[in-house]
Amino acid sequence: MKKALAFDIGGTKIYSTIVDETGKIVANIDKFSTPKTIDGIKKVLREQITKFENKADAIAIATAGAVNNSNTAVIGSTGNLVQGYSSIDFQSLSSKKVFLENDANAAAWAEYKIGASRGSSVSVMLTLGTGVGGGIIINDKLLKGKSGAAGEMHFKMYPDKRRQCTCGSWDCFEIYASGTALKLDAEEMLNNKEITTYDVIDGVKQGNKKMIDILNKWQNDIIIGIKGLANIFDPDCVVLSGSMAQFTDIKYIEAEVNSDLVTTPTSIRLATAGNYAGMIGVSLLALA
Amino acid sequence: MKKALAFDIGGTKIYSTIVDETGKIVANIDKFSTPKTIDGIKKVLREQITKFENKADAIAIATAGAVNNSNTAVIGSTGNLVQGYSSIDFQSLSSKKVFLENDANAAAWAEYKIGASRGSSVSVMLTLGTGVGGGIIINDKLLKGKSGAAGEMHFKMYPDKRRQCTCGSWDCFEIYASGTALKLDAEEMLNNKEITTYDVIDGVKQGNKKMIDILNKWQNDIIIGIKGLANIFDPDCVVLSGSMAQFTDIKYIEAEVNSDLVTTPTSIRLATAGNYAGMIGVSLLALA
Repeated sequence: MKKALAFDIGGTKIYSTIVDETGKIVANIDKFSTPKTIDGIKKVLREQITKFENKADAIAIATAGAVNNSNTAVIGSTGNLVQGYSSIDFQSLSSKKVFLENDANAAAWAEYKIGASRGSSVSVMLTLGTGVGGGIIINDKLLKGKSGAAGEMHFKMYPDKRRQCTCGSWDCFEIYASGTALKLDAEEMLNNKEITTYDVIDGVKQGNKKMIDILNKWQNDIIIGIKGLANIFDPDCVVLSGSMAQFTDIKYIEAEVNSDLVTTPTSIRLATAGNYAGMIGVSLLALA
Repeated sequence: MKKALAFDIGGTKIYSTIVDETGKIVANIDKFSTPKTIDGIKKVLREQITKFENKADAIAIATAGAVNNSNTAVIGSTGNLVQGYSSIDFQSLSSKKVFLENDANAAAWAEYKIGASRGSSVSVMLTLGTGVGGGIIINDKLLKGKSGAAGEMHFKMYPDKRRQCTCGSWDCFEIYASGTALKLDAEEMLNNKEITTYDVIDGVKQGNKKMIDILNKWQNDIIIGIKGLANIFDPDCVVLSGSMAQFTDIKYIEAEVNSDLVTTPTSIRLATAGNYAGMIGVSLLALA
């Protein structure tokens, strides 16, 4: 059976393991802090590749940032990663085929092949974490756009500059639907700069009314965004993944979204491919 | 050369002509007021078909409303058309193949084959008229979604219920970017219910500062929507069509959109396939 040496390169951590062509993880998960230099990142990758590439048919890298349409390089800046990251020649690190995909796209592909959106020819995945990632599948292919950067969830929630997004622009869906957004909602609704996302979640668990209101406001903004995406894509399903997805009420979101669509009803689902969906998805793409 | 007997069925008018397989209109344009009954609509179609189907290889119908993925029927209600319109069995009207597509999708296909988006594998077309239509092409195919209803430009401009859309929901892009929206902007900014879209356009032509402000507000909302779509699709181009497109400043829109994207720059273009793009596009699809 074919296998890929898989990486997931994020702003804070790099994960690595081996994934087989069925999407099964068949080795330990190695974990590294993401180095702050390009040479440091290359060193982590090179050491893993030296150790494990003889067990693999391809090197599969899920990464922060947009990946070009030939799946060989990161394009543009990625915000969370060191400057110049997009200049890395990943193929030079191995004699095996090196295949890259954006982490959210890779995770969406894992959901499509072995997870929550299996069998859905049109689906939208939203990764709700510190930020918001997007992966869209149309007619059984990832939506990549002209340069590979499609699926960015930076459509505006207000037209009039209320909250600046981490991308530098204003009022993007990301800055109303992310974990960061929940903290900002809490700051604004409680007029308290010190409150954390954790405080809100903890308060909700204890039944604190104010914290429940804050979570509901955040979830309502997620619903607003999903309605727009459902009208644009008419998807079979919308999958929510990422560390914040567990705090949403999927059945409520589905009912609200479907009560207010121009298109036909869609199914809202929690992701099921797990925390390493990015590595699984990019491996399935690399080995296909 | 193959030809289609083409129709464009809208809320107020039905157009009909013959289009050849290169997208050329090769007959007069016939024009009818849209009957208010299903039988009336069928009668118009049947009479044209009886007259002209011997000159055609297919019957190609661009229509208001979403069209199913087998291109045989209208799904759901269409707002502007008589109730029960979706129950019409169009194939029963001719022994030739009858092929339907949504009018905005059909027009987008015409732009892609012979117009402004030719050569663009990923494009978004917005039809700015009384309402707003959308037609999206991805990897050289129309985006249809699970049921055929994709491309609805009903994503929200505000999350908090300010202006009701013609679809019944609130604050959709359509109700900020259409001709109707321009009238609503003028009503709100001048506190005058009597003002018309024409008054605004006329005032702009005369250099009236207030009217220019109103037009700019409307255009800015269009820009906000395009930014979101460009981040979601990373398109080669965005094409503006419809009767209101002529009042936009395409170069300004392009500069504004590209100054504020997470994805790579896109080209903003006026449609070039003309007023009968819907009939041309659906004919090209039907004859393909």
